[in-house]
Amino acid sequence: MKKFINNVDSVLGESLAGFAAAHGDIALLGEGHKFVRRRHLKAGKVALVSGGGSGHEPLHAGFVGHGMLDAACPGQVFTSPTPDQMLAAAQAVDSGGGVLYIVKNYEGDVMNFEMAAEMAEGAVARVITDDDVAVEKSTWSTGRRGVAGTLVLEKIVGAGAEAGRDLESCRALGARVNDATRSIGVALSSCTVPAAGKPTFELSDSEMEFGVGIHGEPGRRRVPMASARDIAGEMAGAIGTDFGTRRGHCLLLVNGFGGTPAMELYLMYQNLRGVFESEGFTVVRSLVGNYVTSLEMAGCSATVTLLDDELVRLWDAPVHTAALRWGM
Amino acid sequence: MKKFINNVDSVLGESLAGFAAAHGDIALLGEGHKFVRRRHLKAGKVALVSGGGSGHEPLHAGFVGHGMLDAACPGQVFTSPTPDQMLAAAQAVDSGGGVLYIVKNYEGDVMNFEMAAEMAEGAVARVITDDDVAVEKSTWSTGRRGVAGTLVLEKIVGAGAEAGRDLESCRALGARVNDATRSIGVALSSCTVPAAGKPTFELSDSEMEFGVGIHGEPGRRRVPMASARDIAGEMAGAIGTDFGTRRGHCLLLVNGFGGTPAMELYLMYQNLRGVFESEGFTVVRSLVGNYVTSLEMAGCSATVTLLDDELVRLWDAPVHTAALRWGM
Repeated sequence: MKKFINNVDSVLGESLAGFAAAHGDIALLGEGHKFVRRRHLKAGKVALVSGGGSGHEPLHAGFVGHGMLDAACPGQVFTSPTPDQMLAAAQAVDSGGGVLYIVKNYEGDVMNFEMAAEMAEGAVARVITDDDVAVEKSTWSTGRRGVAGTLVLEKIVGAGAEAGRDLESCRALGARVNDATRSIGVALSSCTVPAAGKPTFELSDSEMEFGVGIHGEPGRRRVPMASARDIAGEMAGAIGTDFGTRRGHCLLLVNGFGGTPAMELYLMYQNLRGVFESEGFTVVRSLVGNYVTSLEMAGCSATVTLLDDELVRLWDAPVHTAALRWGM
Repeated sequence: MKKFINNVDSVLGESLAGFAAAHGDIALLGEGHKFVRRRHLKAGKVALVSGGGSGHEPLHAGFVGHGMLDAACPGQVFTSPTPDQMLAAAQAVDSGGGVLYIVKNYEGDVMNFEMAAEMAEGAVARVITDDDVAVEKSTWSTGRRGVAGTLVLEKIVGAGAEAGRDLESCRALGARVNDATRSIGVALSSCTVPAAGKPTFELSDSEMEFGVGIHGEPGRRRVPMASARDIAGEMAGAIGTDFGTRRGHCLLLVNGFGGTPAMELYLMYQNLRGVFESEGFTVVRSLVGNYVTSLEMAGCSATVTLLDDELVRLWDAPVHTAALRWGM
């Protein structure tokens, strides 16, 4: 394992300290590194709190700031944060509007956010993301996994909360975005969790994992490496099929898992967009880059969110975080 | 070689088409894919044109837009663009204020931009970046290499041009930024150029290349893998020594080469910042991420630009490009 680290136990703490130092205008580190919170809170606004295992950066801490999250709770790499972290984060950022927990559908995350909600004194609601169409059950999830679509939900609900929507309205909006969102990923390599010291799984030089999870969990099948065009066709097919007859205006997010260069991500975007457009989707918004990663895994995912005019307006609304920034 | 491609010859074209499709609000693709240009030109403004071999994305096309570049000329991977591309770009974006070519110090780039300048009919000036302190001469350069500091220069001079500075003032500002900027990089792995099909160089599991260039050119020495703290110490030492007695407020850019996760980049930022601060630098602005990459190479570089109040204002000025966006 070759990584920029001092020792395995301090990776997360040193990385969070660096994040907070680099983005001190946007975010602050909570006591004991339990959470990253927005520097400037807004009185009365619904507070959005997310979190999960680390190793998916910039998700979630990179999305803390105006127009998106109020706090993010980082667990150790690929390990759920604790209810204690979630409760501390909620207490720190609840400004009177209540707290919405945004939870990716993994058993540990779901259980711990549920415990945190039960321990809370103020109003708390939850929305769960499960946008990955690859498999119905996986290593750490019952039901579908929550993956890159989580970022779309955090952006859109963040804009809604910023505009003054109440807790139930934010929760319903989140459920609506999740229902309008589908993702699928493909891995060309594994990643190495620092504490494990060796690759999570093995892939030969001629194979890829179609439908991989963001922790390197198995996907639908292991298949021979194919052309970008064929991979895009299979990804778009999986998403299109899952949407049934639903089509229309959409956001297309091509998300890098960490180890794939921008040049290839844009090439995949070009190929994916072509297939989606030919299948009745009209791409009206786009995002390409490393947003929901798996450490240094090579690979990418495609996410489509069906957008009506209201969702477009919320997507376009100003956002000021470390990893997404526009309109301000 | 496992990459998202259809065939080696179409990688650049498909990737550029994807870039233009994803960022159509900001940039347009020139005829024959010769250049990427800003969608909205500003009459009378000095036009900033850069370019170089591809494989360093988002440099340069990702920095085309308001407050930064007017055009970028992409060569094939790690190959200089042609004078013909540079001339076509200049003609497309010269809005009456003349053209400033921003050139990284590699022989092919320097020669081709010089030829393009000679062929130009309008006013043209040039500024060359050579911020890499690692070596005085390298595979493709006489004198120091231009690396991640190029992004700092493009941002600051872009703000100057946007504010109405004339051609000579922009050139002089660029020279001043280059003089105030130092970088050094370290590679933990090689990258694979699609047309070559195999890694550019070999590194064992226990080695790193200290002072590596952004095409995988050799650095100062190949050394055993070390802790982040020790690597940061050696990087900061190389930059601090090269600055002589010059110290003060600065920008610290920790740039990923493509294959290193954000978690490690922030950890390196934390370690580097500590060393720089202890050596008399005061970090007042920061940037952490994959900005000047070498395809999927694992590794990172540190760049320090000494900032006075004027340079801070120009750095902070609004920018709206695919890869850097703030203040608008």
